[in-house]
Amino acid sequence: MAVYTEINDEELNDFLADYDLGGVLSYKGIAEGVENSNYLLQTDRGSFILTLFEKRTKPEDLPFFLALMDHLAAAGFACPTPIHGRDGVALRTVAGRPAAIVSFLNGVWPRRIQPHHTADLGEAVARMHRAGDSFGETRPNDLGLAQWRPLYDQVAGRADEIAAGLSAEISAELDALEANWPKGLPTGIIHADLFPDNVFFIGGEFSGIIDFYFACTDAYAYELAICLNAWCFEADNSFNITKARQMLAGYQKVRELEGGELAALTWLARGAAMRFLLTRLYDWFNHPAGALGARKDPREYLAKLRFHQGLSGPGAYGLDH
Amino acid sequence: MAVYTEINDEELNDFLADYDLGGVLSYKGIAEGVENSNYLLQTDRGSFILTLFEKRTKPEDLPFFLALMDHLAAAGFACPTPIHGRDGVALRTVAGRPAAIVSFLNGVWPRRIQPHHTADLGEAVARMHRAGDSFGETRPNDLGLAQWRPLYDQVAGRADEIAAGLSAEISAELDALEANWPKGLPTGIIHADLFPDNVFFIGGEFSGIIDFYFACTDAYAYELAICLNAWCFEADNSFNITKARQMLAGYQKVRELEGGELAALTWLARGAAMRFLLTRLYDWFNHPAGALGARKDPREYLAKLRFHQGLSGPGAYGLDH
Repeated sequence: MAVYTEINDEELNDFLADYDLGGVLSYKGIAEGVENSNYLLQTDRGSFILTLFEKRTKPEDLPFFLALMDHLAAAGFACPTPIHGRDGVALRTVAGRPAAIVSFLNGVWPRRIQPHHTADLGEAVARMHRAGDSFGETRPNDLGLAQWRPLYDQVAGRADEIAAGLSAEISAELDALEANWPKGLPTGIIHADLFPDNVFFIGGEFSGIIDFYFACTDAYAYELAICLNAWCFEADNSFNITKARQMLAGYQKVRELEGGELAALTWLARGAAMRFLLTRLYDWFNHPAGALGARKDPREYLAKLRFHQGLSGPGAYGLDH
Repeated sequence: MAVYTEINDEELNDFLADYDLGGVLSYKGIAEGVENSNYLLQTDRGSFILTLFEKRTKPEDLPFFLALMDHLAAAGFACPTPIHGRDGVALRTVAGRPAAIVSFLNGVWPRRIQPHHTADLGEAVARMHRAGDSFGETRPNDLGLAQWRPLYDQVAGRADEIAAGLSAEISAELDALEANWPKGLPTGIIHADLFPDNVFFIGGEFSGIIDFYFACTDAYAYELAICLNAWCFEADNSFNITKARQMLAGYQKVRELEGGELAALTWLARGAAMRFLLTRLYDWFNHPAGALGARKDPREYLAKLRFHQGLSGPGAYGLDH
């Protein structure tokens, strides 16, 4: 649940005076998202999302994110479109926070993932990667391999509180990841946070992707590794190969994976599990219980990491290789 | 922030199959309200609020609340209208909770109260009281005088943690309230929870009242006492007589207060302060910090109680008497 910054009516009216959105009919804080404050804004002209950027999102990255959404939407990919003020500017300030308004994207994120969801997801991700091809800007992944050990250093002293021996286990895995991390894979714009709550469906059909505030330049196949973890495990942390097979097949309907990408997939999946294991550990120790709604359990990503460690190749993901 | 119960897509679809609302375009939890879980639901047919009733709201009271909203809306008062299913039923169950859908009421609640807000509020409250006159049902106020001492008994042992001597101070005030509580005042349907976040405005004009889940039969003037506390104090707990005068004048444009109501107002305001002081104390001690967002400070209502204790008559509220 996320509304960290309250906006009062005068601040909102002053802010909206720079836009051509008509009169405000309502605005309500949305109890979704964990990084930023989101308001659903309804005006004479329609529905919009007003986002106030908090903590993890660096203000200097915001022009990249907004330009990317402009680009993807213009390329026909279904995502929120930044609303520009009368002066053409999309990034402003309200209540002391960087803020932007984007168009409201209809759809519902799937609470119970079915294989048809992952099939649609795979295809949509490939279309998003294709649409990003012509985007001229780049942004390094600031939660990539090079950042994992510094993150680890901040949680190493307490990690064993979560699971016995966890600190040593992570350290050994970081050694392995640093030694084996795939190089030379096809790269481009990836979303980098494609959890189910960022992917919308209407009546079972894919309707769009939201929340591009982790987007960066990285290996396309790393995006699929994140999705394998976020979409293809059941609540008991068992892996669902049907969902994985459907996702990868959906992706390859639009963009075929190269041999090097397939061979790299288990290492990418281990790295993707490590990235979320580390940030969840960091959040666990740095936010008092309940302060931001339920903390996410790091052990979920430990279980996923261990699953990938046990694999000999991408066949376990439903690929013939 | 309030979404205590998550609904998955299948549960929502099953639930909506009993309605004639068209396909779901989106539903998002709303980070407002502290008692129930609220979702903003958008369908082919428009915007709606889906409420799942939690804790303080007793299921057996829900038919009263929904019938009241039906009645007030039919009488032309601006409030959410319960949406009835194809079978005529408005109260159902989803995700194990009693649930109802109501129409979406446009408007924004005022974060910074101005005197024109309280003037509009007073007039709207009187119109609501008038509209409730012809409602055939009654419900006792289950947070009224008789319930305060049992509530006190649950917090008495810890109240001094909030302010030195608070337990004895409340006990003495309860004695005074029980000895002096006004009787024989005009009664009818009151909202009983008219805080600013339940009163909407569009472009500075009153647009409606929401959240009737504390509504009950009680003295009309007690409603005004609740509003004096909730709308007419500044953030530093100083009383703003201009806001009070405007509110009472607005009310009397529609329904003139009787002499007995005016004379009773200081006692009613002390009682209204006591009611919220006690429930805030209860919540303070019974919810871990942060679990439900910020706890509301009981001391705010202690300051308001002490203000009213110091008054000799309703002149302090801007009334000539």
